[in-house]
Amino acid sequence: MVDTGKVRENIRKMSVKAKEAGVILRPHFKTHQSKKIGDIFREYGIREITVSSLTMAEYFASDDWRDITVAFPFNVREIERVKSLAGQITLGLLVDSPQAVRVLKENIKEKLKIWIKIDSGYHRCGIPVQEKDSVLTLAREIQDSGNLALAGLLTHAGQTYNTSSAREISEIFSSLSVQFQDLKDFLVERGFPHIMLSYGDTPSCSTLKNFHPFQEIRPGNFVYYDIQQFLIGSCREEEIAAAVACPVVGLYPNRGEVVIYGGAVHLSKQGLAVSGGKIIYGRVFQPAEKGWGKLIEGGMVASLSQEHGIVALPPEYLKKLKLGDLLFLAPVHSCLAADLLKERTLLF
Amino acid sequence: MVDTGKVRENIRKMSVKAKEAGVILRPHFKTHQSKKIGDIFREYGIREITVSSLTMAEYFASDDWRDITVAFPFNVREIERVKSLAGQITLGLLVDSPQAVRVLKENIKEKLKIWIKIDSGYHRCGIPVQEKDSVLTLAREIQDSGNLALAGLLTHAGQTYNTSSAREISEIFSSLSVQFQDLKDFLVERGFPHIMLSYGDTPSCSTLKNFHPFQEIRPGNFVYYDIQQFLIGSCREEEIAAAVACPVVGLYPNRGEVVIYGGAVHLSKQGLAVSGGKIIYGRVFQPAEKGWGKLIEGGMVASLSQEHGIVALPPEYLKKLKLGDLLFLAPVHSCLAADLLKERTLLF
Repeated sequence: MVDTGKVRENIRKMSVKAKEAGVILRPHFKTHQSKKIGDIFREYGIREITVSSLTMAEYFASDDWRDITVAFPFNVREIERVKSLAGQITLGLLVDSPQAVRVLKENIKEKLKIWIKIDSGYHRCGIPVQEKDSVLTLAREIQDSGNLALAGLLTHAGQTYNTSSAREISEIFSSLSVQFQDLKDFLVERGFPHIMLSYGDTPSCSTLKNFHPFQEIRPGNFVYYDIQQFLIGSCREEEIAAAVACPVVGLYPNRGEVVIYGGAVHLSKQGLAVSGGKIIYGRVFQPAEKGWGKLIEGGMVASLSQEHGIVALPPEYLKKLKLGDLLFLAPVHSCLAADLLKERTLLF
Repeated sequence: MVDTGKVRENIRKMSVKAKEAGVILRPHFKTHQSKKIGDIFREYGIREITVSSLTMAEYFASDDWRDITVAFPFNVREIERVKSLAGQITLGLLVDSPQAVRVLKENIKEKLKIWIKIDSGYHRCGIPVQEKDSVLTLAREIQDSGNLALAGLLTHAGQTYNTSSAREISEIFSSLSVQFQDLKDFLVERGFPHIMLSYGDTPSCSTLKNFHPFQEIRPGNFVYYDIQQFLIGSCREEEIAAAVACPVVGLYPNRGEVVIYGGAVHLSKQGLAVSGGKIIYGRVFQPAEKGWGKLIEGGMVASLSQEHGIVALPPEYLKKLKLGDLLFLAPVHSCLAADLLKERTLLF
């Protein structure tokens, strides 16, 4: 369930922040994957978006989004679909190797925006930010092709997900801003005056105010937030805009637990370590007249199977419950829960 | 991707075993959720099945499965759908509380088979096996209703998933068989002569040969198996019948890693602790002429984001790869991967 009042407020705040910082907000739509939520972004003037698969790009292109970056390494097996989509919209793709550039060069006539993916320390994809010469070589390969326009350098500092304070995030960003300015200067001096810098991740975008030298930010999760972001310090609990409503199917007061119809196929098996090294799979909101209230102290999803969830609750909440009552759960990672439930999302 | 040769052999072996043990095989269809795989079960004479949601029950009822147990606590919010399905097929439901029985009694005229769910030590759902009087009370409530037929006692010994040898599983089962015989005798003496005992879980059903005093077994995962079952000792690697084919989208030989288009939305975020406390999210099969071969020593999915997977590979495999090549991954938990990919499953 999505509380569109909270969604609207999360989007409003991020777009105000982007304006004040003088950066483009190109939100990542992988979190919601919803045309209706996309419409709310439109109300705030958003026209450029990010997705993480060509399938999502096609989906949003069909809803008249005309400028889409696929922030996922170009998959050479999808060349035909890239061709077709590039003829319809302004399509941005990511590369980090000469082979990917060659495949695009040899197979595509349509205009394409190409971003070089830079690894800023997360060690998933990209050319390490220190390897300036490799970046330069790839930039030249892109420039030498007729149809590929080098947009700039794009990074996702996913290591911020392992932090637990705004100060830690700010330290990571400080160091990255120096490295990226340096890399940009290096490329500008070598004939790439228009190189842009694009930066991702919700923890950074939620806690920082200044993104210099980056000119574009691509947060996604902030539209809903979740327990992980709450623990990092990216949001307040009142800002969590998505919950999974699960019926109680078993009551076990002796164990201090209930079992819900809500499992790994609804919430995802994404766990989160909390105090004492315990892994939880969600928390429980207080019921409210409309939607949900604050988090229940001591209310947590202790375990998940395919369709079942075991939820620990304090006695004062447990004793009021009967079979069929709904619990509103805050997911650990709203992107994964929303992906699993995208066909069944209820907006209010 | 599903190798139907391996599937057929897994089904054949389990059905031979059930016959030799003199028990009913009522396989759990939550693993595959596929009508085509269901047809293979039919070839081996299977007519009674298990599912874990009413949605799955409706799906298989629409494919002419006429005897289905929903091995999930009856959700009182689904009473209308239960009513409608109970009019079409022999429907079995699980209860573990008087409230659930009352809702069924007051709302349903159609004949229903009711199983009392027993907690045999997994501590998810059910009345603890030791609490004989509670079981008796519930059995009488069921008997006193006109339409509800008490089928018996049903349990899922999910604790076998935490074992690592056939001996450990056998010890768990030995103790349970005594407890369930005792509970059954107790009920038989008190006017329930026809009470049946039904037992689940793939680790037990794959490693044991004798299921006395249980008269029915409900394994599900065995149709595909996976890395978790391989580590428990439920299967050999040659028996793993499902793999997720993922294109390589990034090559990082310096890190000994590749990045694939294959993430938490394809494999699920189910991890598995391997030696050294490391958590992995899948292993990698050797390529083969048709399908896949053995597991690659040292080939493992080290990390998963929404759409990306980071795969560690030994240098001799890594150096042969180029962008667009497919890796065949063995999932940690095939039930969850199959659920995520059920619309895109390719049988061969």
